[in-house]
Amino acid sequence: MDTKHPNDSRTIMTDIVLPGETNILKNLFGGELLARMDRAASIAAGRHAESITVTAAVNHVAFTQAVPLGSVVTIEAAVSRAFSSSMEVFIDVWIEDRFDGKRSKANEGIYTFVALDASGKPRKVPTLEPETPLEQERFDAALRRKQLSLVLAGKMKPNEATELRALFMDN
Amino acid sequence: MDTKHPNDSRTIMTDIVLPGETNILKNLFGGELLARMDRAASIAAGRHAESITVTAAVNHVAFTQAVPLGSVVTIEAAVSRAFSSSMEVFIDVWIEDRFDGKRSKANEGIYTFVALDASGKPRKVPTLEPETPLEQERFDAALRRKQLSLVLAGKMKPNEATELRALFMDN
Amino acid sequence: MDTKHPNDSRTIMTDIVLPGETNILKNLFGGELLARMDRAASIAAGRHAESITVTAAVNHVAFTQAVPLGSVVTIEAAVSRAFSSSMEVFIDVWIEDRFDGKRSKANEGIYTFVALDASGKPRKVPTLEPETPLEQERFDAALRRKQLSLVLAGKMKPNEATELRALFMDN
Amino acid sequence: MDTKHPNDSRTIMTDIVLPGETNILKNLFGGELLARMDRAASIAAGRHAESITVTAAVNHVAFTQAVPLGSVVTIEAAVSRAFSSSMEVFIDVWIEDRFDGKRSKANEGIYTFVALDASGKPRKVPTLEPETPLEQERFDAALRRKQLSLVLAGKMKPNEATELRALFMDN
Amino acid sequence: MDTKHPNDSRTIMTDIVLPGETNILKNLFGGELLARMDRAASIAAGRHAESITVTAAVNHVAFTQAVPLGSVVTIEAAVSRAFSSSMEVFIDVWIEDRFDGKRSKANEGIYTFVALDASGKPRKVPTLEPETPLEQERFDAALRRKQLSLVLAGKMKPNEATELRALFMDN
Amino acid sequence: MDTKHPNDSRTIMTDIVLPGETNILKNLFGGELLARMDRAASIAAGRHAESITVTAAVNHVAFTQAVPLGSVVTIEAAVSRAFSSSMEVFIDVWIEDRFDGKRSKANEGIYTFVALDASGKPRKVPTLEPETPLEQERFDAALRRKQLSLVLAGKMKPNEATELRALFMDN
Repeated sequence: MDTKHPNDSRTIMTDIVLPGETNILKNLFGGELLARMDRAASIAAGRHAESITVTAAVNHVAFTQAVPLGSVVTIEAAVSRAFSSSMEVFIDVWIEDRFDGKRSKANEGIYTFVALDASGKPRKVPTLEPETPLEQERFDAALRRKQLSLVLAGKMKPNEATELRALFMDN
Repeated sequence: MDTKHPNDSRTIMTDIVLPGETNILKNLFGGELLARMDRAASIAAGRHAESITVTAAVNHVAFTQAVPLGSVVTIEAAVSRAFSSSMEVFIDVWIEDRFDGKRSKANEGIYTFVALDASGKPRKVPTLEPETPLEQERFDAALRRKQLSLVLAGKMKPNEATELRALFMDN
Repeated sequence: MDTKHPNDSRTIMTDIVLPGETNILKNLFGGELLARMDRAASIAAGRHAESITVTAAVNHVAFTQAVPLGSVVTIEAAVSRAFSSSMEVFIDVWIEDRFDGKRSKANEGIYTFVALDASGKPRKVPTLEPETPLEQERFDAALRRKQLSLVLAGKMKPNEATELRALFMDN
Repeated sequence: MDTKHPNDSRTIMTDIVLPGETNILKNLFGGELLARMDRAASIAAGRHAESITVTAAVNHVAFTQAVPLGSVVTIEAAVSRAFSSSMEVFIDVWIEDRFDGKRSKANEGIYTFVALDASGKPRKVPTLEPETPLEQERFDAALRRKQLSLVLAGKMKPNEATELRALFMDN
Repeated sequence: MDTKHPNDSRTIMTDIVLPGETNILKNLFGGELLARMDRAASIAAGRHAESITVTAAVNHVAFTQAVPLGSVVTIEAAVSRAFSSSMEVFIDVWIEDRFDGKRSKANEGIYTFVALDASGKPRKVPTLEPETPLEQERFDAALRRKQLSLVLAGKMKPNEATELRALFMDN
Repeated sequence: MDTKHPNDSRTIMTDIVLPGETNILKNLFGGELLARMDRAASIAAGRHAESITVTAAVNHVAFTQAVPLGSVVTIEAAVSRAFSSSMEVFIDVWIEDRFDGKRSKANEGIYTFVALDASGKPRKVPTLEPETPLEQERFDAALRRKQLSLVLAGKMKPNEATELRALFMDN
């Protein structure tokens, strides 16, 4: 099983915001954006794993800017770190000015997917090797997020979460 | 502005899973569930704040059990802690056996909402006072999650995150 | 097969009204409300029957108040009377003021469901015993409605519809 | 304001049943059919009234035959009687055999609509004159249904419902 | 296998335009209209072929008039020419003035469908015989369109496209 | 107003096919694909024109391969030729094998859009200059298609359609 790069799973979903997809403030409804991010991220996970994948968790989504009716929205998803049978997918969401074409960041999210074999059991996925500084940074942070998630779920003792513990001990 | 309790915002959304809402494994599509949770949670936030609210973040969603086609799904959302103008909403998702009526936990999620005044600016919300042990536990954990979120976003230094730091230092 | 109470099937579906669910007057589109009522009522029927159920009839729905865009709508459905293999489900629909939280009645409806066994044949359902005065009132009226429905369909002679006939003879 | 005939409002909506519109038995979901009937009936009411109309009530819908995935469904709606500002619309639903083209009745329904003027107040509608025996029969029955509806709502005393009372006294 | 007429497949789909089906100009979203035309045309093709049919091509759709929110839209589709296992379907789209009931043409389209047998292979369809002058005109033009489509796809040499060639040579 | 290249408007929309988007053969429903192509093409037109655009015509769509449930579908749209205020957009649709990641062509389409100013009147758009051989080929063919469209609509005499006429005369 080969090592892969974030570019191998990078998925681009550009779409518009129609009236039927807005909330009462005439912005893209949050739940609709979460669903689109899930669709894009599941494609990225599938491209990395070359198998069926299911959403295991949403680790974090930050809505920093509303997405108005009529916007062009680009969702970009790529695997940021692969574990044994799970993958963290990092998702960036951009909106684009209709008149000058400039893009600004609307929000970002981190989802976790698990690869399944034909019988529905978790199966191994290729390892991931980051190529750019941003990919490296997200790759490193993914381990801290995984430890954190295990600690918060009571599945790892805080003193075993070495990466995370360092964050607080060094200060 | 009065203090409120989680019960004042508790929102129940029971619904079924039809074929048009499933993924290729014939389970409720993850994005659709995220959208339903967002709808329920925004009602809970609005009941607490008595104003318009918008989704600010999804802090965490863990999908522990698939929700098969035809399931009866109950989403229960309530504000778990109120900050100045933001609220953490805790969401429990249950599925119900068609034949014996027993409920089992399918997943849970934590979203953050911000209350807005008529001009779209953040506005203060009532404080929240937990009443049951589970509400108290979620209330306490909400502060750690908020500190964590600020630390990860680079808006708080780890040594200022007193609640969170204690978690790692005591072990 | 045990007797059940309306509370055993009571189903609560609280949801919001988004722009994609409205009519040209910016109120919840009537057909969408009928569909949501059908979803809630079919869950109530399924909880009573502990089997698959299908909609057999809509007996009556009265739209007494429009449901504006942005409303919080609560649909409450419970079995009001059980016959051999069919059940009458009574549905109350409430809307809630965003600012003071007061609920007002938007409409109500009465649907009939039939319980099916695995081969698609009608199967017996538990009897229903009302507990509150309102439940008793709806239970009594359900028999008159059933007779009326049979008379109008030409499946019962008017003079056999004793409950209904009394209504007109006594006056 | 002219008198109109059922043919002036007759509305035909032929459509198919796709997987996203079915229930777990792979038949057209009841709520979706109720919504399509509402759309067709509201067009018929609008054609009669030449104004905006809103659904006031569903008087009755009987589901006599399931509508399987892939069916061609024809909904035919026409005003069956006009009152002062309200109209009864009778809706017939047919399904069509893919191979020999034969149509069979799937269900029928009766809805009531109210015509509104620009300020949202009820406004008068043209009278309706039936032309065929079936139209006459539905026209006559509409009055009994209206009386019944008023009696059941407590807005008319049973002994004033002359048409309806006759039905029970004559037997 | 009998010869059929356009009337044997004529399909009428009258529907309204709700807010969730519009674009940012508050007109029916073009993609939604293309989808509705596809649904109506596939029914017409199925009625002619008495088998399953799939969309093979959209030959042309001209949007001559926007369809505003709240419009009553009538789509009328009928087979305009049958080839061996394929059929050209001509689709007219009308909108209707709410107040005086006058219809005006909104757009028209031409789609091609192929009939399939149970194993998914193309199967023969009945021949089509036009009855009215408009049907004859569309029947004749269908052959030129088919030749044109073959020429543009490189599957027919221009000098073999006799019907089409005449159009340019005669002028 | 600058000249632009196809790359300036190139729009990528990668998405999956869920059960609610399929036809009875469990392939992506044709109308849904036409709607997705319209969304992607309208973004490409808007990026070229830097204004609001509306769909004026679908010139051609050829469905060469069905798109099965669960597929990853990539729609790629770019302006292929700009006229005064209208633009031809060429759309390629690819599907991707889940296991080896190989892409194959599913269909292609050609749509025409018109740019509108704030008052809804057509407005000039930048000229387009092709860069690659494929872009040049599509650019050249676009003029023939435009002439053909004008001839078929009776708005241009065949002998004025110089590009098109040559096609038939030279052979």
